[in-house]
Amino acid sequence: MDIQNRNGLDLNQMGQTVAALKNDPSLAQFEFRASNQWMNGGENRSTIRGFYGAGAEDESRQADFVFTNGEPPVLLGNNEGANPVEFLLHALAGCVTTTTVLHAAARGITIRKLSTRLSGNINLEGLLALNDEATVGYESIRTLMDIEADCSEEELNELLSFAKDHSPVCNTICRPVQVSLERV
Amino acid sequence: MDIQNRNGLDLNQMGQTVAALKNDPSLAQFEFRASNQWMNGGENRSTIRGFYGAGAEDESRQADFVFTNGEPPVLLGNNEGANPVEFLLHALAGCVTTTTVLHAAARGITIRKLSTRLSGNINLEGLLALNDEATVGYESIRTLMDIEADCSEEELNELLSFAKDHSPVCNTICRPVQVSLERV
Repeated sequence: MDIQNRNGLDLNQMGQTVAALKNDPSLAQFEFRASNQWMNGGENRSTIRGFYGAGAEDESRQADFVFTNGEPPVLLGNNEGANPVEFLLHALAGCVTTTTVLHAAARGITIRKLSTRLSGNINLEGLLALNDEATVGYESIRTLMDIEADCSEEELNELLSFAKDHSPVCNTICRPVQVSLERV
Repeated sequence: MDIQNRNGLDLNQMGQTVAALKNDPSLAQFEFRASNQWMNGGENRSTIRGFYGAGAEDESRQADFVFTNGEPPVLLGNNEGANPVEFLLHALAGCVTTTTVLHAAARGITIRKLSTRLSGNINLEGLLALNDEATVGYESIRTLMDIEADCSEEELNELLSFAKDHSPVCNTICRPVQVSLERV
């Protein structure tokens, strides 16, 4: 095994990044962005490309990422894309996974395989304002993880607990985060 | 204008859905799902298709939706896809938009155009566990909305405030929501 690379991450670059951030914490400030255009009904499209981080505007992306939200027929759409609450699960699954892989690499743990299945319940009476008692968003979200790694069960469980606590998307969902809405 | 359709939504179907949920609130219970497979490093892939809702397992989708999370080089990846915190902004933008369009239709308001720009700040010291004082996820998320509709400014501002409060993704972010992680 190449000791400069663990779980697909470059350990040299990881060490340099951590050293740079310790030396100048302002480099750790990132701003992420998305632009979204309503198409029709439950269909809308996001464009994602630039962000600010590590003290500069990122210019590494050669093209926009474009994603379409849609709704299934039972929610008045035509399956133009996954719907927003499903994209939230995709974001959460990816963030918990990447955070696990990253901190495993930092601890010298090799991940052999990792997959997750997420599910969450939503009472549509909340969205539709049919019942003031109904929760509007997810009641809770369950993550089932299938993982194999070259460490003890105890080390693996500690890693997963640490990764969950340090995943930015998981933290944004678990903690109350303010969302502002202004017109331009 | 076709009065059976407003903002791309079928008003007959919308009325029937609301009547059905009022008659049998159990139909409002939905479960959404995503399965995610780690590929390598910061790359992982979600598959989204089935969900439960309106009293049945949905079978309207003819194929899986597949989305790839990645990371930019500055975050040790190769831009395999947008990253999870960017997908969270896509989910939020889409949900606030669809909730606005839906409640506008219910109020007889026609939306002429609607676009949003979202941004949020993340301190990477949180993810990397370099500073216990650092927030792990988004500090807050800003939404700038450009909207034109055939109603008064007062009605429009009230609609937007109502939509923000009734958007499932916005509510999941604004409110603390429990995320469980279990191994299988």
